[in-house]
Amino acid sequence: MLSKNKIKFINSIKKKKYRDIQECFFVEGEKLVDELLKSDFQITDLFATNEWISKNESNLSLSIPLTEISQGELLKISSLSTPNKVFAIVTQKNISFSINEIKTKLSIVLDNINDPGNLGTIIRIADWFGIENIFCSKESVDLFNPKVVQSTMGAIFRTKVHYVDFKILFNQANDFEDFNIYGTFLEGENIYKEDLPQKGFIMMGSESHGISDEWKPFINKKLFIPNYPIDFKTSESLNISVATAIVCSEFRRNA
Amino acid sequence: MLSKNKIKFINSIKKKKYRDIQECFFVEGEKLVDELLKSDFQITDLFATNEWISKNESNLSLSIPLTEISQGELLKISSLSTPNKVFAIVTQKNISFSINEIKTKLSIVLDNINDPGNLGTIIRIADWFGIENIFCSKESVDLFNPKVVQSTMGAIFRTKVHYVDFKILFNQANDFEDFNIYGTFLEGENIYKEDLPQKGFIMMGSESHGISDEWKPFINKKLFIPNYPIDFKTSESLNISVATAIVCSEFRRNA
Repeated sequence: MLSKNKIKFINSIKKKKYRDIQECFFVEGEKLVDELLKSDFQITDLFATNEWISKNESNLSLSIPLTEISQGELLKISSLSTPNKVFAIVTQKNISFSINEIKTKLSIVLDNINDPGNLGTIIRIADWFGIENIFCSKESVDLFNPKVVQSTMGAIFRTKVHYVDFKILFNQANDFEDFNIYGTFLEGENIYKEDLPQKGFIMMGSESHGISDEWKPFINKKLFIPNYPIDFKTSESLNISVATAIVCSEFRRNA
Repeated sequence: MLSKNKIKFINSIKKKKYRDIQECFFVEGEKLVDELLKSDFQITDLFATNEWISKNESNLSLSIPLTEISQGELLKISSLSTPNKVFAIVTQKNISFSINEIKTKLSIVLDNINDPGNLGTIIRIADWFGIENIFCSKESVDLFNPKVVQSTMGAIFRTKVHYVDFKILFNQANDFEDFNIYGTFLEGENIYKEDLPQKGFIMMGSESHGISDEWKPFINKKLFIPNYPIDFKTSESLNISVATAIVCSEFRRNA
């Protein structure tokens, strides 16, 4: 049974401001909670229907506070159009990275990404292609936005997303040996013909403005995903998560 | 000025049933209407703010019925969270294809795609990679759904989407010479190592169920997009539009 206070609390953390104050977020649905339970994220409250509990009880740690709720109660707290059996409140994790780790690996850098579905999808892409670290500019959409969490399909529990000051990040990267910052541009080099290493930053711009002028000077390798037929010049573009997927696939295809 | 009847009409065609009866759909926003005006789609009504009209009047054909409306009126008909200056009602076009055209080209085949954003994004991918024809099973989301139209970013006016009976389509394809039907499966061949021709069907399954059992026997080339590191077996998957993008990119990269 859900108390009025709990419903109020959950509805408050749909907003970033209150998620930050409470240092928590929520995770919904069978698939995502399944991934959550496999992770080391800490669950502070788990609400589930009788059906879900019967199926999963034996796998649950006794330290997780579990409350049985009805489908009607689930509807009151869910942000999904079709609420799905289980709802967890989870503690936000402060994730750090070491410069030494970053300088030998491939990471994704997102300049002012706004759409939660895009960020979630990119986290899922990063997870698929074994890219552990994603750097977002501080104005980007919040990682714990319910739509971001949902569209990661659980990859959020395996990927590290950092909100950082790009000036500091790029200045540090400047000192890395043989390290490139890649970005996609209409005037870039054909990505299919480039020799792509297994380290560097893959930088993607925002949905509406691309990579900001401020960061362009830091990009030392400009890439282009050729359209087809290639001699047919287009002014069009690909969706940012689609472009990220193709770039990541190109980096990993010969790895 | 917008009449009450017009507002009622526009709100009715947000539903597929009424779009089909009226044989029309709507297109919103500067970018999309810009693309619409370059296409041969027929506009039956164009509503725009004074600002848009001043900027575009000289390029407009006099045969297009134009009504100036206020931002407040635009809000009443828009399906966008931030309505954007212009709104067009457009006649649906009956698009056909010839078997002769299909048998020498690459086409995309979508089995029961449900999410409008995914269909729109795939249409945009097809447009980028010069894939003119997309076949959808009859249960798929409607092409003229406002969210589909929006997420094509205008590619809807350059790509042909057909809703067909797959049984008929695949039986016809069976008779094509050297023609393959490709699908992605966890047990498929590493797509990076395959020699991919410039014709065939690229079949993608639905978001939740993949390719239906009914159509699996028709797929004669199973492909797999390798995750990284490749020896780390995953049960995860990529979002359908992301997977479509990587597959299309692989088909075109050596073309």
